[in-house]
Amino acid sequence: METVLRSRSQTVTIGADQPFCIIGERINPTGRKAFAEELRAGDLSRVDADALAQVAAGANMLDVNAGIPLVDEAALLAQMIRRVQDVVEVPICIDSSVIEALEAGLAAYEGRALVNSVTAEDDRLEQVLPLVARHDAAVIGLTNDETGIPATAEERLRHARKIVSAAQDYGIKPQDVVIDPLAMPVGADTEMAMATFTAMRMIRDELGVNMCVGASNVSFGLPDRPTLNAAFLPIAMACGLTAAIMSTADICVRSARAADLLLGHDAWGANWIAAHRARQAAAAEAASAEVAAPGAAAS
Amino acid sequence: METVLRSRSQTVTIGADQPFCIIGERINPTGRKAFAEELRAGDLSRVDADALAQVAAGANMLDVNAGIPLVDEAALLAQMIRRVQDVVEVPICIDSSVIEALEAGLAAYEGRALVNSVTAEDDRLEQVLPLVARHDAAVIGLTNDETGIPATAEERLRHARKIVSAAQDYGIKPQDVVIDPLAMPVGADTEMAMATFTAMRMIRDELGVNMCVGASNVSFGLPDRPTLNAAFLPIAMACGLTAAIMSTADICVRSARAADLLLGHDAWGANWIAAHRARQAAAAEAASAEVAAPGAAAS
Repeated sequence: METVLRSRSQTVTIGADQPFCIIGERINPTGRKAFAEELRAGDLSRVDADALAQVAAGANMLDVNAGIPLVDEAALLAQMIRRVQDVVEVPICIDSSVIEALEAGLAAYEGRALVNSVTAEDDRLEQVLPLVARHDAAVIGLTNDETGIPATAEERLRHARKIVSAAQDYGIKPQDVVIDPLAMPVGADTEMAMATFTAMRMIRDELGVNMCVGASNVSFGLPDRPTLNAAFLPIAMACGLTAAIMSTADICVRSARAADLLLGHDAWGANWIAAHRARQAAAAEAASAEVAAPGAAAS
Repeated sequence: METVLRSRSQTVTIGADQPFCIIGERINPTGRKAFAEELRAGDLSRVDADALAQVAAGANMLDVNAGIPLVDEAALLAQMIRRVQDVVEVPICIDSSVIEALEAGLAAYEGRALVNSVTAEDDRLEQVLPLVARHDAAVIGLTNDETGIPATAEERLRHARKIVSAAQDYGIKPQDVVIDPLAMPVGADTEMAMATFTAMRMIRDELGVNMCVGASNVSFGLPDRPTLNAAFLPIAMACGLTAAIMSTADICVRSARAADLLLGHDAWGANWIAAHRARQAAAAEAASAEVAAPGAAAS
């Protein structure tokens, strides 16, 4: 099953036979106080910088979130999406829990967006899915409902079934529903990651849909988060995960690309070798710039 | 099933509920020309250095191999094993394809060794297994025979079955047979890693024995080998791999320990957090030594 997203100029396909889809997590003011203050003051310069940096680091798509208390989220999200579209080519994942903000974001977006997100709650399904259908978008379905995060894989599968079925009632095909089997902090409960992996396998085997998680959640509260995130991805990918909203830290991006190769999604290692050569070329260029203007790199 | 190995002073248990067993690969002259020359000349100083460095980097056991053309491998292997036993406490994996060398290594070793290795070839089984039984050792069983490396997972499972059964004929219990499902270079054939992962799952599900691979093989011939090796381990561990003869490069060791946590083999993340604190303490110590004697670290 393939989920096709588009920007003005690029198409990204999420699928079990595709390289893993890396969705940069950074353009989100949650837990970023300085960024939130800037956005509140109308300064969007960091949006540009974060968009460019994440794409340079290997993001295939970017998540954009404008959730700041007491701010007109709909207006801000639309503004941020226009901004991101102007500086990078990759498709966008429009991230809000506010229907009006999703609506404004979809109206501002030129292409086929991924809407983040709907849950298995009846009222959320009734509010979000018509919007997704009207804009011919795809949607991330979180496998929780009003009773909270299910502890077991079976319950998450049940929620996934419900979301895929509800989407079909609105004319949204299963390939346009990307299920989020919920990655929870392993520091709070070391069984949690296993529940997520099991849910992934069950959802893949029964529904065959694409799946996406917020991968950085796994390491929340623990030291050396990038290494934990980097180790989570290969296991999750082997269990059927096809996309993640994630850090584009070098160790994470390279781990996902290594897992692509190991899992047979990078024929002849062509992408792996090309990425290595690009890094070598960039390093050589940086070194020769340093020779031409000694000390400039430090300024 | 638990495989228990012992040195003079330490016990290591390999098992599905245990932290992953990291067996340092470095004490092996294959492909290390300078090291081979030193060993040939009777200089074993690098054996000490490699043993200490690998244990400091997190190895739970050390592989020791003395395979140099035109050298008395039995005498050299015994000498190297005595040397390693004198400098570090971890159990040893005695690595040779020469029966006399395995015999000399086992005679020199004080503890319960892991013998590396036997294959599914009848004559190898008949030569190696009596030796393993006589020394009450454990043994690595490679899932190939005289016809070469099987392309399919099913054939490797068939070889594994044969080895476990033959071992029982010599009184060696299944928990003392560690099956090697063969990690092959993914650069030569991108389907190869998938065959290895499938073989692991099949062997775990049917035989339930411990498994060990030479993990660095996976990345042979490709750039950025440590990242590939680091991504291979979490997937393999999720498929049932419980040990690897591997590089103790920081990224590989940390990836294995991260996967321990994610797969529920590090309750409360206690090992993960302790390792982080140890690194912090070592860094602080190095920094204060640098303050006490500026420039000394560079000398």
